[in-house]
Amino acid sequence: MAERVIRLDLEYDGTDFVGWQIQARGRTVQGELARALATFLREEVVPVGSGRTDAGTHALGQVAHFRTRSGLAPRRMQQALNGLLPPDIAVTACAEADDGFHARYSAVGKRYRYRIADRKSPLDRRRLWTLFRPLDLDRMRHAAAALPGTHHFGAFCKQDPEPDRFDCHIHSAAWNRAGCELVFEIEGNRFLRHMVRVLVGTMVEIGLGQRPPDDVARLLAEAANGADPRLCRSRAGATAPAVGLCLMRVFYPDP
Amino acid sequence: MAERVIRLDLEYDGTDFVGWQIQARGRTVQGELARALATFLREEVVPVGSGRTDAGTHALGQVAHFRTRSGLAPRRMQQALNGLLPPDIAVTACAEADDGFHARYSAVGKRYRYRIADRKSPLDRRRLWTLFRPLDLDRMRHAAAALPGTHHFGAFCKQDPEPDRFDCHIHSAAWNRAGCELVFEIEGNRFLRHMVRVLVGTMVEIGLGQRPPDDVARLLAEAANGADPRLCRSRAGATAPAVGLCLMRVFYPDP
Repeated sequence: MAERVIRLDLEYDGTDFVGWQIQARGRTVQGELARALATFLREEVVPVGSGRTDAGTHALGQVAHFRTRSGLAPRRMQQALNGLLPPDIAVTACAEADDGFHARYSAVGKRYRYRIADRKSPLDRRRLWTLFRPLDLDRMRHAAAALPGTHHFGAFCKQDPEPDRFDCHIHSAAWNRAGCELVFEIEGNRFLRHMVRVLVGTMVEIGLGQRPPDDVARLLAEAANGADPRLCRSRAGATAPAVGLCLMRVFYPDP
Repeated sequence: MAERVIRLDLEYDGTDFVGWQIQARGRTVQGELARALATFLREEVVPVGSGRTDAGTHALGQVAHFRTRSGLAPRRMQQALNGLLPPDIAVTACAEADDGFHARYSAVGKRYRYRIADRKSPLDRRRLWTLFRPLDLDRMRHAAAALPGTHHFGAFCKQDPEPDRFDCHIHSAAWNRAGCELVFEIEGNRFLRHMVRVLVGTMVEIGLGQRPPDDVARLLAEAANGADPRLCRSRAGATAPAVGLCLMRVFYPDP
């Protein structure tokens, strides 16, 4: 049988993982998938994800692919994987993809959601950041309005290791209120490590009145004007906790 | 200071509790509340709930009350309790009630929700019953249509110990689809132990085609016609798992 490319769409609860990527120690989503694939394909297969997610970060729409000579129907693969995988990972879709499909290199965009609650939420506590102080939504909306477009995100990413390029194009970024929650949704062509979390952390400081509302615009402009990215990062806000973040969807070109 | 009655509205994640009520062993919601109250009121206070919830059953709108001579403002009590209580219990409201208010005896109704998913749901897995077989919603709706009104629920409750009376008045009962979930909502004046779970378990067997759709009506009629409740119970379906059940609201007369 010729080698096939299989695409997996995944949902997972990031709480009990040290992240997506296989590491020397700790439970990972990629590692659990590789183990389940090895069990029923009887071959060593390491699935490639669209990108890493941090320890504690969730996914409703992560995408991965793997190559196999197995002739098993994708529907059967999905059933086998869901039976073998632990309760905190599910394969929500499984399909044969074009030979050139690559979960990371073919991706043209991603959408993330970040949830913040202003009071204790026992039933959702693993899926949102609980902040007990009131946030000014108008100030945060003002800050987020600076994000759409192509910018240098040197101030809003993990600097170690330094990314190979800092520019990202943001299609949309918006804060909305839903009950006692504030929800941030952002969509762009690519995201740097910790980028959504540093953006949220900085906008929360703006919402708390600790920074002026135009600080996001200022930090983007400083980086664009050639300031040292490490210095820029030190001027942005703290990294918001991973618990509130969820990878909602990965976009690929229409076939 | 005269004794005051304080009403607490509570949200909790039932996963890690052996239930509402204090027991010889195991972590209980009532026990955690009593401990937190004792810490800041410096008196032994056992809160009275509107009723028990089973191990694993959640609450978005449980109600409890306690009596105290403390002059502390309810808003301060709420802050103190939320600080002292573990992350899986929250006090969503705290207010002084009329002297005659009793969380259990004053209650005139309750609303429960039961969630079933037909596929793995990692992020919601602690809040719903995952059933991998397709359910026929029309058959389950037919079954639920028999519930509104006053009936003898001898077939649909835990028989040990036997309840003092079996009649309950159901205001509404309906199944709805929400994405890949089936959601059952039921409101009534009172509920017997395990009643919602046995009703759901029986209707699921109807949805799976294992029982005729009019079995709920038949079991209600049999009990009303004087059949032995223990025999009736043995003819109803299995008790659905506690994980899918949530106490949404307790109703009291308008003051």
